[in-house]
Amino acid sequence: MTETTPTETTPTETKEQVITPWEVEAAPGGSVDYMKLVDQFGSTVISEELIARFERVTGKKAHHFLRRGIFFSHRDLKELLDHHEAGKKWFLYTGRGPSSGSLHFGHLLPFTFTKYLQDAFNVPLVIQMTNDEKFLWKDMTLEESIKYTHNNVKDIIALGFDIQKTFIFSNLEYIQYLYPNVLKIARCVNLNQIQNIFGFKESDVIGKFTFPPVQAAPCFPDSFPHIFSSDDPEIKNIRCLIPCAIDQDPYFRMTRDIAHRIGHQKPALIHSKFFPALQGHNTKMSASDVNSAVYLSDTPDQVKDKIKKHAFSGGGATKEEQEKNGANLSVDITYEYLTFLLEDDEQLKDIAEKYSTGIMMTGEIKQILIDLMNKVIARHKEARSKITDEVLSSFMSIRKLNF
Amino acid sequence: MTETTPTETTPTETKEQVITPWEVEAAPGGSVDYMKLVDQFGSTVISEELIARFERVTGKKAHHFLRRGIFFSHRDLKELLDHHEAGKKWFLYTGRGPSSGSLHFGHLLPFTFTKYLQDAFNVPLVIQMTNDEKFLWKDMTLEESIKYTHNNVKDIIALGFDIQKTFIFSNLEYIQYLYPNVLKIARCVNLNQIQNIFGFKESDVIGKFTFPPVQAAPCFPDSFPHIFSSDDPEIKNIRCLIPCAIDQDPYFRMTRDIAHRIGHQKPALIHSKFFPALQGHNTKMSASDVNSAVYLSDTPDQVKDKIKKHAFSGGGATKEEQEKNGANLSVDITYEYLTFLLEDDEQLKDIAEKYSTGIMMTGEIKQILIDLMNKVIARHKEARSKITDEVLSSFMSIRKLNF
Repeated sequence: MTETTPTETTPTETKEQVITPWEVEAAPGGSVDYMKLVDQFGSTVISEELIARFERVTGKKAHHFLRRGIFFSHRDLKELLDHHEAGKKWFLYTGRGPSSGSLHFGHLLPFTFTKYLQDAFNVPLVIQMTNDEKFLWKDMTLEESIKYTHNNVKDIIALGFDIQKTFIFSNLEYIQYLYPNVLKIARCVNLNQIQNIFGFKESDVIGKFTFPPVQAAPCFPDSFPHIFSSDDPEIKNIRCLIPCAIDQDPYFRMTRDIAHRIGHQKPALIHSKFFPALQGHNTKMSASDVNSAVYLSDTPDQVKDKIKKHAFSGGGATKEEQEKNGANLSVDITYEYLTFLLEDDEQLKDIAEKYSTGIMMTGEIKQILIDLMNKVIARHKEARSKITDEVLSSFMSIRKLNF
Repeated sequence: MTETTPTETTPTETKEQVITPWEVEAAPGGSVDYMKLVDQFGSTVISEELIARFERVTGKKAHHFLRRGIFFSHRDLKELLDHHEAGKKWFLYTGRGPSSGSLHFGHLLPFTFTKYLQDAFNVPLVIQMTNDEKFLWKDMTLEESIKYTHNNVKDIIALGFDIQKTFIFSNLEYIQYLYPNVLKIARCVNLNQIQNIFGFKESDVIGKFTFPPVQAAPCFPDSFPHIFSSDDPEIKNIRCLIPCAIDQDPYFRMTRDIAHRIGHQKPALIHSKFFPALQGHNTKMSASDVNSAVYLSDTPDQVKDKIKKHAFSGGGATKEEQEKNGANLSVDITYEYLTFLLEDDEQLKDIAEKYSTGIMMTGEIKQILIDLMNKVIARHKEARSKITDEVLSSFMSIRKLNF
């Protein structure tokens, strides 16, 4: 999968927002209109009722990403919960396109939520590293894409995934097992359809057209013969749930359209919003601009500098203005980052009240975020220091999981 | 690779001949115009001088396929002979798309010639079984394509290839090793180019667009790390020669165009004409019409029946007419088959003289062909009966070759 906020698109005078797996561009001057996206893609907004059911089924309070509408849209989530309650098998599938040496906070979104789902439901998880995609889309060598893969997988493992329940694979190393489903999928989708879904052009390299079936294949349990035995008479009924940013939806719309034709269940999806760039909603996090995102490899001083200098503020320009008018939370990136990172609802509510009414200054809220991010980073660095090459190999080795 | 005379094209009112890897259609009422094809594809006719050089370099009489212009066109064959004479490394690459349980005589063409080349030059040979291609183009399951693969590989092994020098692989089983080069190739060719080269349409499934890089990848030595060590400082200079029917040329034109961009040598080619259907030059051998070809699995009676009933004759309609006018060799399929199968130039010349002048009857020349084919089949069946599953596995196992 690609990161949710890629960088290589040329700025254009678009009037409409453009959201594809490779391009996230809000309408000029605005933010991404997520409701429009739900309408355009044909997914369903996650209702309060569905969140309540989630809590009943898991016996746990819903994750703050659900409570706060960060994971906000879905396909077949009700059916998946029915399936789960009926005691039937399913698995989680997510992924990442390794295009940088370290993850940034935006990259954590799907993985943090996936770990919560895995803990809540106790199901197998497969994580695809699309180093083939990155090679095809970016100016990098295969060797670089493999190096990024291994660095990124170590970051992912450090988030606390259970080795007994998690299989991480890279396409360059695992294509052999995906290939039968890749071929089956590639026999069901024609050029016209792939161009409509992904917007590929005549000048696009043929590798791009070949990639969607590779991202689709892990939706189907027989892509993992070491996890789901072909002797299991129920294998065709095993379902899949994909937590991902909503820009990845086209891959799985395509997959859902053809799943039954190749004898499989449609994957269910749960979609997140995008983690915005420090500079604001209408800019993008960019691998070529290190100041657009905070990385898990940043030092405490780098974090402080980035937030202080670059986090777009909705607060008053002066102390007096802030005291008089308060902050506009809807454009304030520091506050938005806290909605992603600060789990405590009461504390967040308190900050929102004080900051929006001018009791709290921009410098104060930024300091809260700096401290929180540095705490997360310190914990991550400590965890990641224990992820040796052997641990990496174990997570990526072809083996049975504990189910 | 596909068989040279596929069957699934709809008959159309073409005025021009259409030769693609999936369609061999002569202009209405005529034969394939090979000189036009050489002109159109931009290859070079094999000259008498080049055949003479072939004989000097190998120290052997040229194969009758060369002497009789059955292998008639090439790309960079002179450069390959220079390379060989300079003592530099190269290898042979050919292949087959397994779409039937048994090979027919047309399928023998590239393999017979490849074996001659391997014996003459003593170089490694790789044989690609494109079971992925057959799955994508034909109405068959993956299981069927794998079954055909193993049956066809046994037929190929029975032709006498040396296990010390020959590696046979199927894409479904070997894609892991091809994938790096598949991606490199797929990053160099755009949609527009692939449509121009192969004539794919909007309604064609995306799998078809993804296949050409898979057929191209074995042209490069690093697709075979067990045969050509990545430690060899000369690996980038190892060349490849591909014996194939001329309809396969588009794959390798594409490959030659991009080889240098990914740090490899252009493959050299040697092209054959097509083995015609029994019914004549302007019909096609068809897997759906068993009477269009003689299979290596046919019984002596089936061979007799097929040749007697179906081999298009250029002879007189009656004994009297044949005695008076003789046979028109240029349309006589029995005679043409003999040019492929009868190695003895003197005997062939004698038959040609007698048959074209009416001294020999159609029944007699057909009997010569029946006897010859049955001899070849009997020898083949005997050899094939010794090709056990173990022998098959040995030829297809990933291993060093004896070089």
